[in-house]
Amino acid sequence: MTGSGPDRRTFLQGGAAVLGGAALALGGRAAWDASTSTGPAVDPARDATAVDATAVDATAAGSAVVPFTGDRQAGVGTPPPAFVSLVAFDLVAGVDRGALVRLMRIWTDDLGRLTAGRPGLGDTEPELAGVPASLTATVGFGPGVFTACDLEAARPPWLAPLPALAVDRLQDTWSGGDLVVQICADDELTVAHTMRVLARQARTFTTVRWVQRGFRRSAGTTAPGTTMRNLMGQVDGTRNLVPGTDDALIWHEAGADTPAWLVGGTSMVVRRIAMDLDTWDALDRSGREIAVGRRLSDGAPLTGTAEHDEPDLDAVNDLGFTVIDTVAHIRRARSDNPDERFLRRGYNFDDPPAPPALSNSGLLFVTFQRDVTAQFVPIARRLDELDLMNTWTTPIGSAVFAVPGGCQEGEYLGQRLLG
Amino acid sequence: MTGSGPDRRTFLQGGAAVLGGAALALGGRAAWDASTSTGPAVDPARDATAVDATAVDATAAGSAVVPFTGDRQAGVGTPPPAFVSLVAFDLVAGVDRGALVRLMRIWTDDLGRLTAGRPGLGDTEPELAGVPASLTATVGFGPGVFTACDLEAARPPWLAPLPALAVDRLQDTWSGGDLVVQICADDELTVAHTMRVLARQARTFTTVRWVQRGFRRSAGTTAPGTTMRNLMGQVDGTRNLVPGTDDALIWHEAGADTPAWLVGGTSMVVRRIAMDLDTWDALDRSGREIAVGRRLSDGAPLTGTAEHDEPDLDAVNDLGFTVIDTVAHIRRARSDNPDERFLRRGYNFDDPPAPPALSNSGLLFVTFQRDVTAQFVPIARRLDELDLMNTWTTPIGSAVFAVPGGCQEGEYLGQRLLG
Repeated sequence: MTGSGPDRRTFLQGGAAVLGGAALALGGRAAWDASTSTGPAVDPARDATAVDATAVDATAAGSAVVPFTGDRQAGVGTPPPAFVSLVAFDLVAGVDRGALVRLMRIWTDDLGRLTAGRPGLGDTEPELAGVPASLTATVGFGPGVFTACDLEAARPPWLAPLPALAVDRLQDTWSGGDLVVQICADDELTVAHTMRVLARQARTFTTVRWVQRGFRRSAGTTAPGTTMRNLMGQVDGTRNLVPGTDDALIWHEAGADTPAWLVGGTSMVVRRIAMDLDTWDALDRSGREIAVGRRLSDGAPLTGTAEHDEPDLDAVNDLGFTVIDTVAHIRRARSDNPDERFLRRGYNFDDPPAPPALSNSGLLFVTFQRDVTAQFVPIARRLDELDLMNTWTTPIGSAVFAVPGGCQEGEYLGQRLLG
Repeated sequence: MTGSGPDRRTFLQGGAAVLGGAALALGGRAAWDASTSTGPAVDPARDATAVDATAVDATAAGSAVVPFTGDRQAGVGTPPPAFVSLVAFDLVAGVDRGALVRLMRIWTDDLGRLTAGRPGLGDTEPELAGVPASLTATVGFGPGVFTACDLEAARPPWLAPLPALAVDRLQDTWSGGDLVVQICADDELTVAHTMRVLARQARTFTTVRWVQRGFRRSAGTTAPGTTMRNLMGQVDGTRNLVPGTDDALIWHEAGADTPAWLVGGTSMVVRRIAMDLDTWDALDRSGREIAVGRRLSDGAPLTGTAEHDEPDLDAVNDLGFTVIDTVAHIRRARSDNPDERFLRRGYNFDDPPAPPALSNSGLLFVTFQRDVTAQFVPIARRLDELDLMNTWTTPIGSAVFAVPGGCQEGEYLGQRLLG
């Protein structure tokens, strides 16, 4: 902290607090009441005179705050902002339960501050913290945490690498990890700063295993609630679990079989899906629509007229063939068992290509579900067995994490497991 | 194009056309009158009924259009949007003047469409083109273009690799290139799609040499006109040429010594500057401020109180030492010769680190100036000789390009050189 008068950071925070409702609404992230925000304390008298409506409008996407504390971690049921950095860490030898508790205490404290637009304790670039931009950071534990902490008995049975799939061409550089943090915000500098703070704090406990960065459309460019498009041009994520409505499939809730640390928790699967845009580009629009089973123009199923129409899998054309092909992605991706669904929260990636390739693109396919084995694996197996889209997409990274429940003020992340 | 009724793209374009002024103003990019836009033709009657004010507000940053045609290329004097992809291409053997003309015709046509929010001809993902988000694409020619086209006599003397500097640790992977395109927009998907279209069109003419992606704060997060901060936390770019005011130092203007193709043109230097954030983090705030010569909190010179105050290089403290250190960056970066200045248009980069590093961060230092030798090189030499910041920053890539003047409707980029 600099302490030298009303600097720009203070101004922005004031704007967020005074006009929080408007700020959240503008970016279409209006999932929370700003009055419940854990945002910074401000001097209302000063801010009321310092802030004019025009200035606040121009910075509203920056000052939006997503509460960090709560029964569940943010970044799962909360609306996905434009950018993600998924950072996986490996624990260094000798890190045990006590050490992990120290790291979680530090990260929890830092994240409480950073998500509110304030610098972390000991933040060496405090001025970069002033634009929370709907920042969330979701922490997950890989199998290695349970080994290192001598907690094998507490490891959920689904917390393990996914079963081998024929389509997989997994690279170690994009797979596994003892810890993960999914950092999301509507601003790349905020994401970069948050990652830097967390990685620096963890440096004596961990090494960085992989970093995967992704994007969707920027805040303020498309109508709130628009389903994202991937780099193949498809509307991607139409049929998705709905937080609030489908919570029983997303979250672990209190019950006899649920350990306390998993109440309000979930599981996270990260699959890095490479797209072969060169061969995809050789396919005409009709071929692409058959492969997916949806229209490219608006994502409507080939039997419907609007994106969210239910596909008619039995409808046939004049020749007697089903309109939605027998191996179309949307047919293969749905099971007769309504429990075999999960929350997708994917992002595009577009990294520099290695010559002579033109592109190095794909999808960070991130899913949340109560139980990986019961919900994710059956669908992955169906798609592995038959899916036209397998021609152009290849999983090259894979990791599974347990996401512990959220923490309340004064608690640290994972306390009910590690404490 | 899909041609199936009022799809989302048409809707957005309608919003841009109808409320273009508001759209530009919201993001603080109000450098042009929307009425001069080369944007798509729309049916005003349909759009007047289809667009409501709320929806347009939420997508204004996406529908903003920067005109592609004009005396000068966009992306130099126009306000920098949040994201850049710098893509360098090498010409493949056998590409001559005729082939390059064909490529420039194709790119010019594509860019005229894409910057207006419309798909390129033969765009295989047309739905990704509907969010122009202030898209600009600035094309530059490296020395190789003049060799391949048998135009050595036309090569400006400053179009060559920079002279060797002691601080340089240049990597071939980040240096040189026969052609460059600087793609800027407020949306990463738009940047990715534009890059894909251009690279695909160029595939028989070129190979991709390098891609460098960078970011600033997102549109709508900070007040318009705010100077960017870099990942060291510094306000970066305070003392800069001002387009409109300092045009004589940025642009080649018509005159006896100026070849026609350079009228309205400039030169572009791309330096990839790695930052050693680990050693920088070990420095306290006072040490950092001495190294730069500015306050971290607000960018004011150590002798001033506000960011744009002129530094007093002669001011001394109680001990008789100059307040701004003799090797402080801001002292070393300024010359007594007012012509030795250039337009900086930099972006941060934050790529995945190679373990065990925590970060792979730095600055894409992009400059535009009339004459590299007269304006850029003297400052680079001064900083090479003495600059405290050299302790924490290392140039690892370097390239120089000539940016031909803009093209008018019906012309192609570079026509006055290649035609």
